[in-house]
Amino acid sequence: MQRTLIIDALNAEEAQPSIVLCGWIRTRRDAKDFSFVEINDGSCLANMQCIVDTDTAAHLGLAEATTGAAVRIVGELVASPGKGQKWEVRAQKVQVYGLADPETFPLQKKRHSDEFLRTIAHLRPRTNKYGAMFRIRSEAAFAVHDFFRSHHFSLVHTPVLTGADCEGAGEMFRVTTLEPGVKDLSEDFFSRQCNLTVSGQLEAEALATGLGRVYSFGPTFRAENSNTPRHAAEFWMIEPEMAFADLDDLMELGEGLTRHVVDHVLTRCEGDVELFDNFVDKGLRERLQHMLAAPFARVSYTEAVEILQKSGKSFTFPVSFGTDLQTEHERYLAEEHFKKPVIVYDYPKDIKAFYMKQNDDNRTVAAMDMLVPRIGELIGGSQREERLSRIEARIREMGQNPEDYWWYLDLRRFGTVPHAGFGLGFERLLMMLTGITNIRDVIPFPRTPGNLEF
Amino acid sequence: MQRTLIIDALNAEEAQPSIVLCGWIRTRRDAKDFSFVEINDGSCLANMQCIVDTDTAAHLGLAEATTGAAVRIVGELVASPGKGQKWEVRAQKVQVYGLADPETFPLQKKRHSDEFLRTIAHLRPRTNKYGAMFRIRSEAAFAVHDFFRSHHFSLVHTPVLTGADCEGAGEMFRVTTLEPGVKDLSEDFFSRQCNLTVSGQLEAEALATGLGRVYSFGPTFRAENSNTPRHAAEFWMIEPEMAFADLDDLMELGEGLTRHVVDHVLTRCEGDVELFDNFVDKGLRERLQHMLAAPFARVSYTEAVEILQKSGKSFTFPVSFGTDLQTEHERYLAEEHFKKPVIVYDYPKDIKAFYMKQNDDNRTVAAMDMLVPRIGELIGGSQREERLSRIEARIREMGQNPEDYWWYLDLRRFGTVPHAGFGLGFERLLMMLTGITNIRDVIPFPRTPGNLEF
Repeated sequence: MQRTLIIDALNAEEAQPSIVLCGWIRTRRDAKDFSFVEINDGSCLANMQCIVDTDTAAHLGLAEATTGAAVRIVGELVASPGKGQKWEVRAQKVQVYGLADPETFPLQKKRHSDEFLRTIAHLRPRTNKYGAMFRIRSEAAFAVHDFFRSHHFSLVHTPVLTGADCEGAGEMFRVTTLEPGVKDLSEDFFSRQCNLTVSGQLEAEALATGLGRVYSFGPTFRAENSNTPRHAAEFWMIEPEMAFADLDDLMELGEGLTRHVVDHVLTRCEGDVELFDNFVDKGLRERLQHMLAAPFARVSYTEAVEILQKSGKSFTFPVSFGTDLQTEHERYLAEEHFKKPVIVYDYPKDIKAFYMKQNDDNRTVAAMDMLVPRIGELIGGSQREERLSRIEARIREMGQNPEDYWWYLDLRRFGTVPHAGFGLGFERLLMMLTGITNIRDVIPFPRTPGNLEF
Repeated sequence: MQRTLIIDALNAEEAQPSIVLCGWIRTRRDAKDFSFVEINDGSCLANMQCIVDTDTAAHLGLAEATTGAAVRIVGELVASPGKGQKWEVRAQKVQVYGLADPETFPLQKKRHSDEFLRTIAHLRPRTNKYGAMFRIRSEAAFAVHDFFRSHHFSLVHTPVLTGADCEGAGEMFRVTTLEPGVKDLSEDFFSRQCNLTVSGQLEAEALATGLGRVYSFGPTFRAENSNTPRHAAEFWMIEPEMAFADLDDLMELGEGLTRHVVDHVLTRCEGDVELFDNFVDKGLRERLQHMLAAPFARVSYTEAVEILQKSGKSFTFPVSFGTDLQTEHERYLAEEHFKKPVIVYDYPKDIKAFYMKQNDDNRTVAAMDMLVPRIGELIGGSQREERLSRIEARIREMGQNPEDYWWYLDLRRFGTVPHAGFGLGFERLLMMLTGITNIRDVIPFPRTPGNLEF
């Protein structure tokens, strides 16, 4: 007989004389005449309550199965007289696939700290919180694909292995097939130094100038030795790139994407979001709904600096034109001043990357950051400099050789077009969607300095 | 005025007095009274034909723009009297974004060899063939996500950086932050050896035993120094893992996924598939349709060996029970014997990995490979050994220490369940979908020994 997922059984239209469910026992309560068993199969947050009458073959089958045990239950799906669920199952047959010794199984029915659960990252998907987390992660990823596809973007896979450190976006990991201690890179797999990508932007630009609209969605790496709740050595990034587009189009795209994902997750992951709203971050759902209620704010960097200067706040880092905005400034703007996401645009050119389009004022570039309450920067992007002479000059100003960028400059040499793109850290988005404050808890198996288990 | 994508303009319901198109000139033909300009913006294979009358402001704007130049055209969308297109544009205004010097622009209107185009991988997305290729790549990826989601699978991101070499699936790249020549791994980023993943299977199993059904879709690496048309150092793999599932469920899943992607691409990428059918692999479309026409064949390894032995073929590698099937055998089975995809199951345990479920016959394991005409192995997977004592014994047989697999064995120690999964190489799938025979031509920026440009 075909097995039914618990999510489907819970949404059944009518009672069913016979149904097969599989899952892990979350709780078991033994009464005189029957045992209550709640099982979960990962298809949704909710458990199915199963009643196993004492002195039946089913009860014999259940045997000593306790929290964490895996079972297969055949039974009747009937309306539940209890509160909180529409259906329950009266078990006719129970088969245990695998027990979980209560003496050694680490996930007993009680609240565990996030720190402890990180040490058993292979088991934490069996908890309510991390089950909900990773279902939201999946739905958010789908929403990203769905959004871009409906806007005629092609998904592109930019390379993880790269010979370039163009952007200077961060410290890079080196990749090699040489034994530790061997020095001669000409003997290495690629006969030269190979790094793990910090951004697929340059390659995405090449693809956008053929396919028109592209986005990459892949792993990205930073070898920064910083142990903070916001940094991981490996994380996933979404990087759209649009030909024939300017900064306005890009702001529109960033806001549209963010709104789409929030809306999708609120609609499709109702139960999972409720868990975070109840137990992790009170008011989460309302804050997410508030994001959708009105357009995001937009303000130039110059205006943003004025707002910060007039705020009367005493910031740790003083702010004036030309300084990079710190998290304290970003959060003040989004949380206190605008009380919603805000897009800051036209940053001073000296604090931004060489490939950003220079504005006519000669002091700013057509860059934009999207700042979100509690998160700070969610998106960073820019219109790209499409004028060959300008970008060559910037490369030389950095003390680098334009020839090292030959293929990137070819995009400006042949049929150059105005184009724009941004990067969105997927884990930041997930922290925004769940209220989780440590990046280690939105990634199944996080990588940080010294941590490579699993 | 809002720009219209060429795909939308070509599908317009009615003529439009004014429309804005952007794109790159594919061809230009100058007649006495007007110039014909075909432009492409990457949104689809087809170009839009634009007519620019001589002695107009539009013609002045067009100036010396030739193949490869980027333009913006404002004009009237009118029914085309010519063959092959429903609409054309009578240009009122032409603006050139960027020229492409005919003396130096490498993509003139002629056929270029794949070998040459690999040397300009940054420009080849501007050709018909590679534009079509990468649009199919994107749609196929979407079809994968779509299929799994509709079957209640969660997308999971398994780590790229790993401390394990569990599977022995291939040579691994090492990742480090030490300078070349430095030997002391305790000083390294993770204080131990770190490799690039060859498979996310083990981590996916951990996630499946909480979430129930998961799949990963991410980059995978092999440091094999082999220069063949079928091997790349970096490629993308799809790895589903299902709890409460056996080998039959897995074969069903593999066939269902393959059929869904083929059907999706045939339906959604009609024009792009036609290009490959016409110019790359005659009969491609018919072969793909044929795959959908009937269920795939299924045959045990033992029967497959008998078929091969009775075939009367003289194979380079003789075959008998216990030998691994070679590409020549796989292709004979799929192309000549069954004339369609065939799933071979129950392989001898000695040629398969330690984690595969041992069958009761004591000589085979519940493994399966899906073999496809012209490609050979597309999918390889198995039911996983869920019995703790059996899998520990196999690890010891390999001369390894079960303690090194502590967390993987925990999945069997606590609430173990029958489960199954496979790996599908995404590039193999794309080769099947397009008829392209070199893996370097289905990846935007391929990585092979010595090749790290772009």
